[in-house]
Amino acid sequence: MEKQHLPKVVIIGGGTGLSVLLRGLKQYPVDITAIVTVADDGGSSGRLRNELNIPPPGDIRNVLAALSDVEPLVEELFQHRFNKGNNLTGHSLGNLILAAMTTITGDFVHAIKEMSTVLNVRGKVLPAANTSVVLHAEMEDGTIVSGESKIPFSGKKIKRVYLTPEQIEPLQETLDVIRNADLIILGPGSLYTSILPNLLVPKIGEEVSKAKAKKVYICNVMTQAGETLNYSASDHVKALYEHMNESFIDTILVNEEEIPEHIKSLYEEELAKPVHYDIDALKELGLEVITDHIVCYENSVIRHDTNKVAKLLYGILQQK
Amino acid sequence: MEKQHLPKVVIIGGGTGLSVLLRGLKQYPVDITAIVTVADDGGSSGRLRNELNIPPPGDIRNVLAALSDVEPLVEELFQHRFNKGNNLTGHSLGNLILAAMTTITGDFVHAIKEMSTVLNVRGKVLPAANTSVVLHAEMEDGTIVSGESKIPFSGKKIKRVYLTPEQIEPLQETLDVIRNADLIILGPGSLYTSILPNLLVPKIGEEVSKAKAKKVYICNVMTQAGETLNYSASDHVKALYEHMNESFIDTILVNEEEIPEHIKSLYEEELAKPVHYDIDALKELGLEVITDHIVCYENSVIRHDTNKVAKLLYGILQQK
Repeated sequence: MEKQHLPKVVIIGGGTGLSVLLRGLKQYPVDITAIVTVADDGGSSGRLRNELNIPPPGDIRNVLAALSDVEPLVEELFQHRFNKGNNLTGHSLGNLILAAMTTITGDFVHAIKEMSTVLNVRGKVLPAANTSVVLHAEMEDGTIVSGESKIPFSGKKIKRVYLTPEQIEPLQETLDVIRNADLIILGPGSLYTSILPNLLVPKIGEEVSKAKAKKVYICNVMTQAGETLNYSASDHVKALYEHMNESFIDTILVNEEEIPEHIKSLYEEELAKPVHYDIDALKELGLEVITDHIVCYENSVIRHDTNKVAKLLYGILQQK
Repeated sequence: MEKQHLPKVVIIGGGTGLSVLLRGLKQYPVDITAIVTVADDGGSSGRLRNELNIPPPGDIRNVLAALSDVEPLVEELFQHRFNKGNNLTGHSLGNLILAAMTTITGDFVHAIKEMSTVLNVRGKVLPAANTSVVLHAEMEDGTIVSGESKIPFSGKKIKRVYLTPEQIEPLQETLDVIRNADLIILGPGSLYTSILPNLLVPKIGEEVSKAKAKKVYICNVMTQAGETLNYSASDHVKALYEHMNESFIDTILVNEEEIPEHIKSLYEEELAKPVHYDIDALKELGLEVITDHIVCYENSVIRHDTNKVAKLLYGILQQK
């Protein structure tokens, strides 16, 4: 099938969750665009962001790698993280390549397009904005925590998140792909620090809300301490609605597989528990609820099973 | 012409001099192999060598870039040097890529071959050894200076240079290409710190000496403080012979173009002068002497004119 006739899928989130999903989804005949947050300020990305004055490359790097179709060695090279050396420790080579390309071209989006060509990326990767943004959280007690990497460690409950600077321009291309999408997928990923930093970029959230596409939210399997402690599935959805001032999600994908006790106990050490799927509350919100066994385990880390989730999403596209 | 029928040219030296020459030579129908020193221990290369325990990548990087046939942006990326950022300053991206690839594959030569493919390199690039080597200089006063980057700053006259460890294995491939070469070119490059660190790798110097190929030495245009202060052209040749215990050069290429006064005075600030071409002494050494106008100027830096030198060298090949 030619690309212009493929169903158009837009996926919105951060690096890790998106890249897990994209590895499965790219196997299907769909035209993928990933919209990726630029609010990261921790680790290698945060250092490059501060030192070179460029948008944080890490989330974009993971998504490019997930969508790439090159020899394994080239992908391994792009994802290689220096773990020796006083000064390079923690930097991944792909981040440094994106940083150098951004410095040379003076344009993060241009750098991403060039790297997409080199890595033979199956789809389009767009940053939520062509500049860094700062994520802030207003806590229930009224205090403000600034910086994506600091928010989960405040020990307080988040009331809302917002971005600065106030004037952030999304790419016109991003608004266009959202408007023309056949399916819009939110997540999987951290609610406040991966998904919302995209939707809060002016015009992106509004464009998603009013898009004709079916909107599917892939709910996290586990709660996250410092973000979604004790959140049920409907609490996740309500948080999205409150930030957008609108009910805009059509379908939620939830895992119904019981998490093994030994893995649950590992997660409990980080105050994370399986998200409670309050199906009735979700239906009251008017959502179509799809439940299935959609997780797998990588070294005791719970992940969405990319093949199963991709198959479900492709099934939704075919229903249309 | 198919590659197996092209004349085989082997070029021996360090990064900067070789890369200047190779940009011209790769335009000719020749099968190029560059043999490149691994004695560098300064700058970005030195830091990577020490911190990651890999051979110094910088000279190899320059030669790969010179022989590459890719879009200008990709070459610019490979050669990009980070000049901001506390920790990355001075590292060039190509060095970091070679470092990462060496760490992943565990093998510097393998990393170079992979990068040669990615960069569409026109020829073969071989390190003089697959490990780092340390260059030492015994000075006229008997003191020893260790480390390539320190040698030019001792303020003393070099008597001889040598490598450690004593057991260094060249690649069998390197010995084979030298043996089968139609033309072997030494330089251009620093006598003691770029050319000799190759010839002093056990077996490489011997193999060059006894090779059937015509051996051409491209003499430096200017003397270098700390290395070849006041050296005439024949002093350069004698230093090579003393280190190899043998007269092995057939032809010397020397510049006869007068260096403009304003450039000479810039070089004099660094105690560098035009090399005196003592033609009679060179002929007494049994050398064929080729003189021509073979320099050009890049921002007041004297370089061999890559097109003129390449043409002369190709002419030598055709005489055979």
